[in-house]
Amino acid sequence: MPGTFTVAIQALQILLGARLETSSSVRLHHAHDESFHTPASPDAVAFPKSTSEVSEIARICVRHHMPMLPFGTGTAMEGGVNASQGGLSIDMSLMNNVLSVSNEDMDCTVQAGVTRIQLNEHLRDKGIFFPIDPGADASIGGMTATRASGTNAVRYGTMREAVLALTVVTVDGKIVKTSSRARKSAAGYDLTRLFVGSEGTLGIICEISLRLHAIPEAISAAVCSFESIDGAINTVIETVQMGVPIARIELLDDAAIKAVNAYSGTNYSSLPHLFLEFHGTSAWVEEQATIVKELAHENSGSEFQWALNTEDRTALWQARHDFAYAVRAMRPNARIFSTDVCVPISQLAECIIETLDDINNVGMAMPIVGHVGDGNFHVVTAVDTENEDEMKVIDAFHTRLIRRALSSGGTCTGEHGIGQGKKAFLLEELPAGVELMRVIKHALDPDNLMNPGKVIDID
Amino acid sequence: MPGTFTVAIQALQILLGARLETSSSVRLHHAHDESFHTPASPDAVAFPKSTSEVSEIARICVRHHMPMLPFGTGTAMEGGVNASQGGLSIDMSLMNNVLSVSNEDMDCTVQAGVTRIQLNEHLRDKGIFFPIDPGADASIGGMTATRASGTNAVRYGTMREAVLALTVVTVDGKIVKTSSRARKSAAGYDLTRLFVGSEGTLGIICEISLRLHAIPEAISAAVCSFESIDGAINTVIETVQMGVPIARIELLDDAAIKAVNAYSGTNYSSLPHLFLEFHGTSAWVEEQATIVKELAHENSGSEFQWALNTEDRTALWQARHDFAYAVRAMRPNARIFSTDVCVPISQLAECIIETLDDINNVGMAMPIVGHVGDGNFHVVTAVDTENEDEMKVIDAFHTRLIRRALSSGGTCTGEHGIGQGKKAFLLEELPAGVELMRVIKHALDPDNLMNPGKVIDID
Repeated sequence: MPGTFTVAIQALQILLGARLETSSSVRLHHAHDESFHTPASPDAVAFPKSTSEVSEIARICVRHHMPMLPFGTGTAMEGGVNASQGGLSIDMSLMNNVLSVSNEDMDCTVQAGVTRIQLNEHLRDKGIFFPIDPGADASIGGMTATRASGTNAVRYGTMREAVLALTVVTVDGKIVKTSSRARKSAAGYDLTRLFVGSEGTLGIICEISLRLHAIPEAISAAVCSFESIDGAINTVIETVQMGVPIARIELLDDAAIKAVNAYSGTNYSSLPHLFLEFHGTSAWVEEQATIVKELAHENSGSEFQWALNTEDRTALWQARHDFAYAVRAMRPNARIFSTDVCVPISQLAECIIETLDDINNVGMAMPIVGHVGDGNFHVVTAVDTENEDEMKVIDAFHTRLIRRALSSGGTCTGEHGIGQGKKAFLLEELPAGVELMRVIKHALDPDNLMNPGKVIDID
Repeated sequence: MPGTFTVAIQALQILLGARLETSSSVRLHHAHDESFHTPASPDAVAFPKSTSEVSEIARICVRHHMPMLPFGTGTAMEGGVNASQGGLSIDMSLMNNVLSVSNEDMDCTVQAGVTRIQLNEHLRDKGIFFPIDPGADASIGGMTATRASGTNAVRYGTMREAVLALTVVTVDGKIVKTSSRARKSAAGYDLTRLFVGSEGTLGIICEISLRLHAIPEAISAAVCSFESIDGAINTVIETVQMGVPIARIELLDDAAIKAVNAYSGTNYSSLPHLFLEFHGTSAWVEEQATIVKELAHENSGSEFQWALNTEDRTALWQARHDFAYAVRAMRPNARIFSTDVCVPISQLAECIIETLDDINNVGMAMPIVGHVGDGNFHVVTAVDTENEDEMKVIDAFHTRLIRRALSSGGTCTGEHGIGQGKKAFLLEELPAGVELMRVIKHALDPDNLMNPGKVIDID
């Protein structure tokens, strides 16, 4: 199929001029995300500036049967942007306007290419912020498409909860508003949530209305080490059960701590750690912290090491966010293998401990980090994708990990999405569900042109 | 169509025995909800006991082209259960088992017929509760189907946020699990949210996994009156903006207060009131209350009248919940007209004030109550559905109200759903969206057998 889209590309060039790129360097940049999945270049890359341009692009593509692959910042983890069947990468980076902000309603509407850091800089002096933080400075469109979450989700929810409404372009170029900006709605099917997490396979997300939150009066972050990983996990479970509205509660196992120390120049002890953050009024933050300190103490945790001012907090979370790069730095020229599962929190300790045993047997350095307040954890390693034997070992480990999560009543991905990497696992998790997803996909995209080969295979 | 399902009914009788009812009294009981919409009896009523029985029922119905109408407690407001095209009412009341509760995960799985009060009684000694409270003792299945919410939603969210996973039966009798119990998931399309709010038109919701919450250490409720409705609404807006996690913040206008006083024997002053509830630790509840008291004071609110013990709080909220009955009691033999809209909170004051003007011009008693922390409010009145002139006046008023909400960037329903009453308004709100809903409906239910005539019209 690749290389057969000459007429479509000519039509797109007439529409977009220099904003339609076919150079191999630009195509290669759009061939992959940050994962180890095999890059695959699109035939061309479009840089639309407006929703109506995206609509025109879709009309051209559908006429010429050219696949469409929305592209945000390329920071995802399951090969969702790779053009495995060729086609047009639709790079949303020029659609980077914050269209409106309402302080009273604590919401905003942005174009899909706005990144989360850009948005928070825009909001900084308004006393409100967008809390969802997957680590990378991802685009809001990409975060919506993958139902992203990250460190703040235990308090503020994921993109599922954050998105109020969308404007999407469907495969035939129709522009569809999915909902109003109202906080609640019982007005028909939840089209918004259908597109959140659809990974570009049902339509192109162009504009997003988001819930925002008041910047808390007080924010305190702390780090606490534990003799055993059980102690850390039990602290998390008890914190959540007490109803403490903790903003972040992140687990790093000892291998993760070592990688972070080496990369970020920190000197945490080589033990499992929790990284914590509390939001609220000063008094309320203090009360929350006191409760969690006591729980940690009962679970043989260390004293809290506080990061109270903005700089110290930023440094603390930067070290956590740089974790994936820290792992990659462990091995030159490697690519990142990063998977994520999410289990009911009652199963978390057992699932992580069994996984540590498994890692021990495999004998590779595979640190674990987790947004454990939600039961979500990652296993990350640096892989040599050219080494077939190694990739087989990783594959087998990955399958065991996912099956362990599924048999614990969990999911094959808490936040990375399915992309091209987890289609078989999704089928194991929700066999009848995938059948229903296929019916929906076929109804909305009968010719399988929207990011084909991702999420579900079409017969 | 009604009356042509003899063969289907025979097959259902073989399957269900005495649990297939065709008596006119049982059919009439299933012909309507609590609204003024014209009752329409189904041809028969099935009382399944298990998901697999529901699956068998669907297989029989689809074979004989018999419409299927799931029925919970009949407490909805838009005629969603009325059998306007005949068919089989599927009463879920015998599927009333709490299947599992996990204290550690703070979740449970219930059959669709479990009611919210039944569930909370089941949970009472476990320190956890299910917060969503639409007033009526609705079934969890019905609440899921209508994306219900109510007084606690400002703090705990709606059924959209509360539902973790579903087991549904599709039109062809397939049993589909939509998700795992994990708190977060990025595993494919959000089938769970597609069924939440689908009002029985895409499948039959049989089992529901729900998020639960820790029962707060302290709960305090209070009532506060205001000289003007603006003062009350501004207090709400400022409370939400300050990030105070208030559990309930309910507006009753002076007409509503009069109805409540008359029905419940309370003696609130004839002014707009806020009914408030704070949840948290004792110290945190006190801090929240202090902040809101100050905001109320700045907006010319009265002193808070506290309800601190369980009995007083129950009485306070019972008065609020009995509001609809209080309105009906204003007029013998009347039916309840209750509509709900939801607007961005910045538009709430203007929208309510314009509506009060409109009510004044209409000259009927039409109290307003609102879950105003979410921008959601109801206008309720007692109507004589036999009086055509009156119904015309109501219709015209209703249309003006909805258009006012839509032009404020809001929705035609915050929590009641579309049912048969708001199809035209949904089309006004989301014209392109309804087209997409139709594509989805046709894909999942090609013969239009699942609660036909509700949510969207099929050409």
